[in-house]
Amino acid sequence: MQFSSRLMEDAVEALHSLPGIGRKTALRLALHLLRREPQEVERFAGALNRLRQEVQFCSVCHNLSDTPTCSICQNPRRDAKVICVVADFRDVMAIEQTGQFKGLYHVLGGLISPMEGIGPDDLNTQTLWLRLESGTVEEVLLALSTTVEGDTTNFFLYRRLQEMPLNITTIARGIAMGDELEYADELTLGRSIVHRVPYSVQLNTP
Amino acid sequence: MQFSSRLMEDAVEALHSLPGIGRKTALRLALHLLRREPQEVERFAGALNRLRQEVQFCSVCHNLSDTPTCSICQNPRRDAKVICVVADFRDVMAIEQTGQFKGLYHVLGGLISPMEGIGPDDLNTQTLWLRLESGTVEEVLLALSTTVEGDTTNFFLYRRLQEMPLNITTIARGIAMGDELEYADELTLGRSIVHRVPYSVQLNTP
Repeated sequence: MQFSSRLMEDAVEALHSLPGIGRKTALRLALHLLRREPQEVERFAGALNRLRQEVQFCSVCHNLSDTPTCSICQNPRRDAKVICVVADFRDVMAIEQTGQFKGLYHVLGGLISPMEGIGPDDLNTQTLWLRLESGTVEEVLLALSTTVEGDTTNFFLYRRLQEMPLNITTIARGIAMGDELEYADELTLGRSIVHRVPYSVQLNTP
Repeated sequence: MQFSSRLMEDAVEALHSLPGIGRKTALRLALHLLRREPQEVERFAGALNRLRQEVQFCSVCHNLSDTPTCSICQNPRRDAKVICVVADFRDVMAIEQTGQFKGLYHVLGGLISPMEGIGPDDLNTQTLWLRLESGTVEEVLLALSTTVEGDTTNFFLYRRLQEMPLNITTIARGIAMGDELEYADELTLGRSIVHRVPYSVQLNTP
């Protein structure tokens, strides 16, 4: 594409640098921005810039935060006796979205992966041990992916955690809500039978 | 989605306001920006902001421009004897991309559309008459869409232009390069036969 405007060219190049945005889409987005109010575009660009310049990681749980300590760690109504260990701050978002967890988090910042050369020391494990040594924590909920890396990390954490006076739990694996049994994979279906729970009406309503 | 970071929330909302960008994609793009260098994100946001704040419309041809007169109108190597009339500055980009036109442009800023209440006075026609009155222009090339609006605008312009000592041309309609005859619509195929041209080797190579 040839532009008579260098400003247009720069804007299209910038948008095109985003993942999944081709040059045609970038042009369409740039033209859209041109039609917006100047103040609105200023706010738009400012929001993206501020995100990168000002966002921090919580000094306690390593979650994304606007302040040195994140809003979850600062919230006195959260249950400091339970810590949910997750790989990534996106997992925090997903769990917060459910509204079912009232404890605190600990973001590892990844999973142990010998293939990618990520060992336990590359994750935020040291701060986890420090938090657990304080003695207020009674339960650690491991909420990692059911992948080889997730299982390896679970196992590594479990070996260290079982030496402490802690209740170690993990999220339930089973048939997803609304899923058909016949399409479930046999491993999941098998585990959902082995770990069957007493029937209750609440369990079957979302 | 729930964010522990207001900055993240603002950035996702901003990206989500773009056409065709859902909240999940907006989050993905925001996470991508987070992984970039801060200076790079500053340049990114700056390019979008400057586009809206600083871009202008050329005072001669109404094309997008960084300066009061656009780079095409300022270019002394362009042929000032031919003016190509287009509806939109995107058409200028498309024609510039071909590298086949060396004259100047005139961007109407739309097409006559009684349905949408757009009349000749809503388009940049007054400045076109002024440019033609100067006497340097010998040819006006009408490059508008083959839609009802395009044909109406073509007809309106033609009636005014034929009173002037001008060569009035329009872009050739016919079978697109690489198109199969059997799939061409009959109107286009019919016109391509009526307006057939002497065979030349160059015509058949892109």
